[in-house]
Amino acid sequence: MSEVYAVRRGRLRDRCAAAGSDAALVSLPANVRYLAGGAPAGAVLLVGSDDSRDVLLCPRRPAEDPAAGRPDDLLRLSVLPTPAGDPAVAAADLVDPAGLRSLAVEEHHLTVARHRAIRSVAPRLHLTDLGCAVEQQRAIKDEEEISHLRIAAEISDQALGELLESILVGRTERHLALELERRLIDHGADGPAFRTSVATGPHAGRPGHRPSDRRVEEGDFLCVRLGATYRGYRCAIGRTFVIGTSPADWQIDLYDLVFAAQRAGREALTPGTPYRDVDRAARRPLESAGYAEGLAARTGHGVGLEIDERPQLAPAAMGKLDACVPVTVEPGVHLPGRGGVRIDDTLVVRPEADGGPELLTITTKELLAL
Amino acid sequence: MSEVYAVRRGRLRDRCAAAGSDAALVSLPANVRYLAGGAPAGAVLLVGSDDSRDVLLCPRRPAEDPAAGRPDDLLRLSVLPTPAGDPAVAAADLVDPAGLRSLAVEEHHLTVARHRAIRSVAPRLHLTDLGCAVEQQRAIKDEEEISHLRIAAEISDQALGELLESILVGRTERHLALELERRLIDHGADGPAFRTSVATGPHAGRPGHRPSDRRVEEGDFLCVRLGATYRGYRCAIGRTFVIGTSPADWQIDLYDLVFAAQRAGREALTPGTPYRDVDRAARRPLESAGYAEGLAARTGHGVGLEIDERPQLAPAAMGKLDACVPVTVEPGVHLPGRGGVRIDDTLVVRPEADGGPELLTITTKELLAL
Repeated sequence: MSEVYAVRRGRLRDRCAAAGSDAALVSLPANVRYLAGGAPAGAVLLVGSDDSRDVLLCPRRPAEDPAAGRPDDLLRLSVLPTPAGDPAVAAADLVDPAGLRSLAVEEHHLTVARHRAIRSVAPRLHLTDLGCAVEQQRAIKDEEEISHLRIAAEISDQALGELLESILVGRTERHLALELERRLIDHGADGPAFRTSVATGPHAGRPGHRPSDRRVEEGDFLCVRLGATYRGYRCAIGRTFVIGTSPADWQIDLYDLVFAAQRAGREALTPGTPYRDVDRAARRPLESAGYAEGLAARTGHGVGLEIDERPQLAPAAMGKLDACVPVTVEPGVHLPGRGGVRIDDTLVVRPEADGGPELLTITTKELLAL
Repeated sequence: MSEVYAVRRGRLRDRCAAAGSDAALVSLPANVRYLAGGAPAGAVLLVGSDDSRDVLLCPRRPAEDPAAGRPDDLLRLSVLPTPAGDPAVAAADLVDPAGLRSLAVEEHHLTVARHRAIRSVAPRLHLTDLGCAVEQQRAIKDEEEISHLRIAAEISDQALGELLESILVGRTERHLALELERRLIDHGADGPAFRTSVATGPHAGRPGHRPSDRRVEEGDFLCVRLGATYRGYRCAIGRTFVIGTSPADWQIDLYDLVFAAQRAGREALTPGTPYRDVDRAARRPLESAGYAEGLAARTGHGVGLEIDERPQLAPAAMGKLDACVPVTVEPGVHLPGRGGVRIDDTLVVRPEADGGPELLTITTKELLAL
């Protein structure tokens, strides 16, 4: 197991060496976890000039932070508690006497104050920018990572399926959201991958809606968005239902439109497709129907150790899809005062030869009247 | 209502002016919320040379972020959506043409990359460090803030009280934690103030224990730590119980010891007392009993818009308590393999003339056998 992490660190080491850096200091928690197999709160990872010099610096003894990760994953890595100060500064203090001349740091995560503290303990050290090298490395998943995501999606499908069998009318958004989160844990999730969103009636379709005390009513659209975390890996599923015996015509029309847009986005998920083309495929049907204004800035994004990571599926996104990249496709329309529809899936990009995109969240996308 | 925020910004403005800065850029979310009345995700606040120049810069239109705060609180403040880029960079772009020469930024929160981006759009602007000026301002609470904390504590007491009436043996730590969080919401919390900790048997007393699948057994110590958020304000309560008919002698002895330590800490909470003296009062009984090794690095901390804010009650902490500062007092002992005891309260420092420290979390601290 722990060799996976050593291999990942090796790839980063090679990249740093090619860029002229002697060592890298990784501070973004998801990046630390990816490279070390665990990320105790506040820990930073120093990737040195060879594997034996890699050190995980923790503000506390790992024993005090039992949720930090499976300890066996950390076995091949030196762990250094730094209870007295900033682990990033302690890392620089290790590097300086080792005769290293340059250290690449994550400037998009490290604060100005920490950067300054590092410079002051190691003034001869040349600090460079590691940029998003680790995030880029994380975008393409190995099969074990994908299998974690697959389990996370199964758990999410189960939790959602159980909710649909219960009585919904009269219950509040907050309670439905809490019940979903409880069911995620019942089915073996580490926890929810993000704050569960339940949006009813006029709230339905709002991006990022946080559950309120509004109760489910007959005739409502009901949008549910949830996801499990399993072994650190996070997925998302979103579905829209109608409450009551039969949906109104405008509800059917709006649902069909968003469904078609979401399907177009899913079908565009082939290796080599530019990110912006996936976004355009999902966005264009909604724009053509007159909903250009008010659409979210993007129609999907990568998932993994973070619920929102590379790539972004957005009009101005640069880059192309690779195989084994898990993404969400999640277009939606919200009509102020009336409600709306969102449909979210998590899929893995696969070549046509392997059957095309692999759908992880398999709950039906028929419009169910509950 | 919104005048409270204008007054707070005024105090920061005066402080900046005294330090020679023309404007301040506040990016830490709790600080933005404290000064603006709401903190949409990713928003930054520019505090200019007078109130009419204060601007909240948001990455999205606030309508898309309904949980950002009560909209009326934002009324007296200009809100500028900056959908295309970093709001901090947009803020610098506003300041530069206004002829301002210096901008104080939160170097302990702003990343190196954002700092660099600001310098590049406004190269003539002199960037200084605002430091923790807003955090310092936040430490002493007004009566409205304290009333929010009081309600948060009431909610926490209610949730805990209800749990104690239910059957505990055989249930997992995870489920008990989830049930507590559900009850917090039932009683009107915005949400949990932090991840609820339930620790049974050998886990009991571990600082920061995350709920596992271990089930409650007869004879266990059971440590529960939870807190509600109410209108953004967060409190903490922690209690330790014994499961079964009667506690063992070692359990009674350990409980009495931690109880005495916690009481000593509470009784030290008077205005003018150095932080380290409060810590010493709670720490010394535990050290004298032979538990010096393994004690947490601090025995309490401030609470408010963040669950862990100024002051720190720790051996090396500098400073003295003021009236109207809410803090936790939370000593504990963990015996590896056997379990332990933690007792946490949230209190507000008050002068003796006003009756001394105000205990917000009033659940009994008798050792209950459940």
